[in-house]
Amino acid sequence: MSRYAEPMARLIEELKKLPGVGTKSAQRFAFHILRSSDDDAASLADAVRALKASLRLCSICNNVTDVDPCAYCTSPVRNQRLVCVVEEPTSIATIERTRGYQGVYHVLHGTLSPLHGVGPDQLRSANLLSRIERAEIDEVILATSPTLEGEATASWLASTIRGRALQGGAIRITRIATGVPAGSDIEYADEVTMARAMDGRREL
Amino acid sequence: MSRYAEPMARLIEELKKLPGVGTKSAQRFAFHILRSSDDDAASLADAVRALKASLRLCSICNNVTDVDPCAYCTSPVRNQRLVCVVEEPTSIATIERTRGYQGVYHVLHGTLSPLHGVGPDQLRSANLLSRIERAEIDEVILATSPTLEGEATASWLASTIRGRALQGGAIRITRIATGVPAGSDIEYADEVTMARAMDGRREL
Repeated sequence: MSRYAEPMARLIEELKKLPGVGTKSAQRFAFHILRSSDDDAASLADAVRALKASLRLCSICNNVTDVDPCAYCTSPVRNQRLVCVVEEPTSIATIERTRGYQGVYHVLHGTLSPLHGVGPDQLRSANLLSRIERAEIDEVILATSPTLEGEATASWLASTIRGRALQGGAIRITRIATGVPAGSDIEYADEVTMARAMDGRREL
Repeated sequence: MSRYAEPMARLIEELKKLPGVGTKSAQRFAFHILRSSDDDAASLADAVRALKASLRLCSICNNVTDVDPCAYCTSPVRNQRLVCVVEEPTSIATIERTRGYQGVYHVLHGTLSPLHGVGPDQLRSANLLSRIERAEIDEVILATSPTLEGEATASWLASTIRGRALQGGAIRITRIATGVPAGSDIEYADEVTMARAMDGRREL
């Protein structure tokens, strides 16, 4: 028998499914909701429901959006022929914060990871590849993370794009720089990062 | 009046000058030395004295060495015409750990830092510049840290080298890559690092 009345126990169980939320936090959230007004509780419930009901993936770039195509893919001020490929929609925020990127995005929703059963078929790359076949893209920037999975995904995607682009004409395929992070002392750089920083040195 | 006998108090004061060593640690070190054998204490004292007596700076590259010129500058397997400029001798260890660099080094012993009174005259660059004037170098890799001071030092050095190299012929001046560190998720990249990673993207 549960220590809490069934509706309370059920909410706690649901809240515990959120990342980083354990029993203690879930109980605190649930009691906060219990104490809040009926309107507040209804707003939260509606917001959760509306998220799933109204959000979908952009049919062009797979970004999470409430209008299809998404705001990036329909923007007249963005270069629609420059596409930055990222792992997750959250990466877009990281790149937008630089305020220097004027192209559009393509979200793979994951990286190749044989150990977790993610192969090329599980990545959302089909709409990117068909845009490349239609020669709608001049440059693809591969901005997956410089991790094992991210690098594997980047090199798989580079060779796939090269195979598809043959009919469509020349396409630039670039990879974001790996190196010592800005503001950091090279003394703290690990050897792989330092080796990449040396390999990737640029003419001044 | 000191709590300790004068020789003990004096050693504690000396040990406290070491970086990261406070009164507690200095006392622990001093009592350890007191309890150790006469030979051990003498070895430590000799090692401290010998360090200063036998180490000097390499006349070619300013690296800390016991033979002049240093082992890098006299190595027959190293490319003596490829010079990596670093801030401190400790940076050499970071780059050597990559096991991919086959050139030699030049140690500036600092970075430009007007706030701390370090101007171009305080950096040890004269012997580098005269090697450049004698056209002994094909490429200079500027491997100062991507910090404010490191970047300022790199751009000052780049323009100084360009001015000096005119008589000596063409010289390549390169800068190590700034970017997302290897193994790190781009979600955690700050905006400056991410912007540099995008700017510094390389053709695949």
